[in-house]
Amino acid sequence: MVVVKAPAVAAPLVTAIYEQLGDRGAMPLKISVPSEPMRAFLERVDSDALETPRHFLETMTAADVVIEVGGATNVAELSGLPSEDLQAFSKINEPLADAQQDTRWVTTLYPAPGNAQKADMSTSAYQDFVHRAVNRDWEAQREFQAELVDRLESAAAVRIVAGDETDIRIRIDGNRIVNEYAERNMPGGEVYTAPIPDSVEGSVCFDKPVMAMGREIQNARLEFEGGEVVAHDADQNADVLASLLDTDDGAKRLGELGIGMNRGIDRFTYNMLFDEKMGDTVHMALGRAYDDTVGEGNKGNESAIHEDMIVDMSEDSRIEVDGEVVQRNGTFVFEDDFTPAPDPAPQ
Amino acid sequence: MVVVKAPAVAAPLVTAIYEQLGDRGAMPLKISVPSEPMRAFLERVDSDALETPRHFLETMTAADVVIEVGGATNVAELSGLPSEDLQAFSKINEPLADAQQDTRWVTTLYPAPGNAQKADMSTSAYQDFVHRAVNRDWEAQREFQAELVDRLESAAAVRIVAGDETDIRIRIDGNRIVNEYAERNMPGGEVYTAPIPDSVEGSVCFDKPVMAMGREIQNARLEFEGGEVVAHDADQNADVLASLLDTDDGAKRLGELGIGMNRGIDRFTYNMLFDEKMGDTVHMALGRAYDDTVGEGNKGNESAIHEDMIVDMSEDSRIEVDGEVVQRNGTFVFEDDFTPAPDPAPQ
Repeated sequence: MVVVKAPAVAAPLVTAIYEQLGDRGAMPLKISVPSEPMRAFLERVDSDALETPRHFLETMTAADVVIEVGGATNVAELSGLPSEDLQAFSKINEPLADAQQDTRWVTTLYPAPGNAQKADMSTSAYQDFVHRAVNRDWEAQREFQAELVDRLESAAAVRIVAGDETDIRIRIDGNRIVNEYAERNMPGGEVYTAPIPDSVEGSVCFDKPVMAMGREIQNARLEFEGGEVVAHDADQNADVLASLLDTDDGAKRLGELGIGMNRGIDRFTYNMLFDEKMGDTVHMALGRAYDDTVGEGNKGNESAIHEDMIVDMSEDSRIEVDGEVVQRNGTFVFEDDFTPAPDPAPQ
Repeated sequence: MVVVKAPAVAAPLVTAIYEQLGDRGAMPLKISVPSEPMRAFLERVDSDALETPRHFLETMTAADVVIEVGGATNVAELSGLPSEDLQAFSKINEPLADAQQDTRWVTTLYPAPGNAQKADMSTSAYQDFVHRAVNRDWEAQREFQAELVDRLESAAAVRIVAGDETDIRIRIDGNRIVNEYAERNMPGGEVYTAPIPDSVEGSVCFDKPVMAMGREIQNARLEFEGGEVVAHDADQNADVLASLLDTDDGAKRLGELGIGMNRGIDRFTYNMLFDEKMGDTVHMALGRAYDDTVGEGNKGNESAIHEDMIVDMSEDSRIEVDGEVVQRNGTFVFEDDFTPAPDPAPQ
């Protein structure tokens, strides 16, 4: 029982998926959350009337597999809607995300014109970009990432330092390190885990843009104490950032720490499925932790949101694991061109 | 909890529906059975692997309302597939149809290019045709149809005579007469009921084309004894007719007798939602009876199929109800221009 969640623009890929399902004797059901109709719905609906779509939830609960295909003719379709409404809509859909997690699921993207436009690329060039990111030697990628997984698996704490504005400490002890090489995400290419919710301390500036509620947050800055955001700011759309943080209690804490390792993704394209895998980046997500990252006996952060935000690590940066530098300026300690330079100055 | 079942080509109508759902605080879920992907699936799947899509069934069971929108970019998308495969697919989907019947449901059509092409009309002219059929004075239509309902409600038997090849007798005693004026179908415009399954006797030639499994059956002829088809033939695609009849036991019996009364529908367009409502026609369906037409204590016909077929009643024809002529040459006894002419010859 396979749910294929895909927009109309992804029709050629949906046909290719149905071919595979036919070969396997798996029964398909196509669902979509169509952006123009959904915008029309959200513009009109009284947010008090919003409730979890039980029929949708039943579908996801009965599904063995969910194949989620992104792709947009206009990525700005929800722009201008009140953020409270989008938050309310996000909250009622939380059980759907939970149910999907309990299936064998995969997320991918059809290279649609809206996504290409957002990346400032022709549709043709964007298709090539997507294919380069996706058509990789995933076994080699898995082995490359396993080197980092090994170092994180027995570790207690990670410190991320980048430029003047990012120095953040995150405990991960006991949580699970996931080597994502295109099992759940296509493309894959990251290593990620869950922070211990109360452990996060320090400051971070996410210097890659964050798209939230159809708007672009630039240079989102967060300051953490005891795991919680105690100060926040941004150069653009700071109010969207504030709204995000205000979704629920868990929205003020981190649910994910991820390290991008797919060097086939060589540019920022305003699409998190790709951006978070980009080489020389780390990302942290406000909100819910993935079940598969929370260690036995540990607590995972809970929230209606999971908002990934990216820090460029290509220059003037390092990742420390239990005090040892495992990446400097984007290069890992297990790569040939790693430079064991001393830290510029003690802090 | 509203399921909107619609193809991608119907996007503008889906947006209009979502606007209405927003106003009412009803939660939408969009499902589609996409024709190109589904064809690719059916070409490849081993029919032994087909099973009822439980995730789809759960959705329909949890839905309060189903809004089903037709519309095709290519109405021939399933053409050429083996009829056994289409039958098997039809069978596994039977529980979905049952579940939909238990909701508040409505079926309509978006005037898409493929439908227009099938009707041999420009898309623009076809849109006008659809709007004329749909934008009617439904209260006046209801009253017009109620005249016929009155005559059928206390009746035991109906006889349909048309040309040389149609003379069929159908008992309906105890079954319910439905006045369909756009409550379940948009457009509406028919009066229908269920035959007593074992009661059908005589011959009928459906002189309007029947589309089944992507192919066109011309002049389907059926001969009934004791309710069952005992002989069948057609001028074109007789094998498709044979396959239909072979679906299951119930496919050889009638599940519906309907009388088309929407004079806004003035031409045959190869779309049953419209064709069966056309003025001056009757239709009979092989296969399942609708629950709402089966009287208490009566048996409704059961089958995986419900295949409507149309007889032109505009000339050389009559409908008798318990021996009384209620329609001659397309004109009802309760209309001004009804001619109480004698039958041409006793039989």
